[in-house]
Amino acid sequence: MKKARIVYAGAIHEATEAPDGRLLLQDGRVVAEDAVQWLTPVEPRTVFALGLNYADHASELAFNAPEEPLVFLKGPNTFVGHRGESERPYGVTFMHYECELAVVIGCTARNVKKEDAYDVVAGYTIANDYAFRDLLENYYRPNLRVKNRDYCTPLGPWFTDAADVADPMNLKLRTYVNGEVTQEGTTANMIFDIPHLIEYLSSFMTLGEGDIILTGTPKGTVSVEPGDEVVTEIEGLGRLTSTITGKAVPAGEK
Amino acid sequence: MKKARIVYAGAIHEATEAPDGRLLLQDGRVVAEDAVQWLTPVEPRTVFALGLNYADHASELAFNAPEEPLVFLKGPNTFVGHRGESERPYGVTFMHYECELAVVIGCTARNVKKEDAYDVVAGYTIANDYAFRDLLENYYRPNLRVKNRDYCTPLGPWFTDAADVADPMNLKLRTYVNGEVTQEGTTANMIFDIPHLIEYLSSFMTLGEGDIILTGTPKGTVSVEPGDEVVTEIEGLGRLTSTITGKAVPAGEK
Repeated sequence: MKKARIVYAGAIHEATEAPDGRLLLQDGRVVAEDAVQWLTPVEPRTVFALGLNYADHASELAFNAPEEPLVFLKGPNTFVGHRGESERPYGVTFMHYECELAVVIGCTARNVKKEDAYDVVAGYTIANDYAFRDLLENYYRPNLRVKNRDYCTPLGPWFTDAADVADPMNLKLRTYVNGEVTQEGTTANMIFDIPHLIEYLSSFMTLGEGDIILTGTPKGTVSVEPGDEVVTEIEGLGRLTSTITGKAVPAGEK
Repeated sequence: MKKARIVYAGAIHEATEAPDGRLLLQDGRVVAEDAVQWLTPVEPRTVFALGLNYADHASELAFNAPEEPLVFLKGPNTFVGHRGESERPYGVTFMHYECELAVVIGCTARNVKKEDAYDVVAGYTIANDYAFRDLLENYYRPNLRVKNRDYCTPLGPWFTDAADVADPMNLKLRTYVNGEVTQEGTTANMIFDIPHLIEYLSSFMTLGEGDIILTGTPKGTVSVEPGDEVVTEIEGLGRLTSTITGKAVPAGEK
């Protein structure tokens, strides 16, 4: 089942997908996707993000693939729901979208072995982990100006139950900018797969319900500009839309 | 005023310091420090930690001082209250305490200028930001195994109102291991002071009530072993005690 958290007529609702693609509220009302405000489908607790977890993306950035997971944390200010706005700060050269499978942890978990890892997964959603690449000062850990700006990590639209995703390690990812496909990949190409990441993280810390792992992005990230509509799509999970705002960069100043 | 959050007789209480140094509960009961369980004095929202924010400490680690703040985030699993236990993982070579002034943000704050920075500070507490130095893979950003283990960031004992701290940039810091002073410094030696850090962070993201900035540690960090009692003390704010647990490392295996 797919679930969303939305605001409609002044209140927060949990909604599911109606047969016609609209939103079915728990009180029986059916409303259009554009008649509501979408919140993130999960209220994130600790959010882990992976750097360079697809070899083709590491190679595209001229980096070696990492030998152990490169993981950093993201704060609550940076998340925004489906159909939200993300601002391109004036003066940056690169604002790269990053289509990522987001794994939602469903329970307290410590020292989980790979073979048991899916037992602690509640479900999945889609993230777009925007990066301001020219502010990246080092390979290992992006600083907060690159990865923790307000509303620069769209998440959603739906939370999909783990039971409805037959093979999370074999899902197509695709990004569209203004309707044109600009990024294509598959979760099969992750360097550290979901069981590996859960075993790794839970080997030295406790994971909790509502923790989210953003599993990295494949190659094909290009820069976007104010006014662009960016859709990150994952097979079976939906299409997450975000709009870029901000003051356009004058020609020649890019 | 100093406030603590403690558990006594099966319930969470807010407590203040009684004239005799014991804890005064809001219902009038007065109890001893060791008759309660201390929680962290603030429930942390986003927690920022500074790397290498004292030049003498950077130098001690043979690093150059940073040119802009090195900031990383910490997750909720890593905090523990006064008189808590922090585990030294079996097999690590270095477990370094780090006595740090913790600045608690009191309101939503964006684009705060240095001269207005103290307007958004609610108060202060003490942190001990333990690090497992041999697992540090790079200068810029410690990985989660170094800085995000369960219960390895003691915080407390008290939250002290900003109004009661005349000059937070001129406080003595001191750490005692088993009663002996092993670290001494002053907040006056921070590279990036509190107003600078608040201006920097709020220039690209929104700070919120309950956010905490751990402002870094001066030189004098030494490794501690299971059984050690570590007290980090800051002038006017109190003394934060933690005990190291874990399996002792056999001689020769260190």
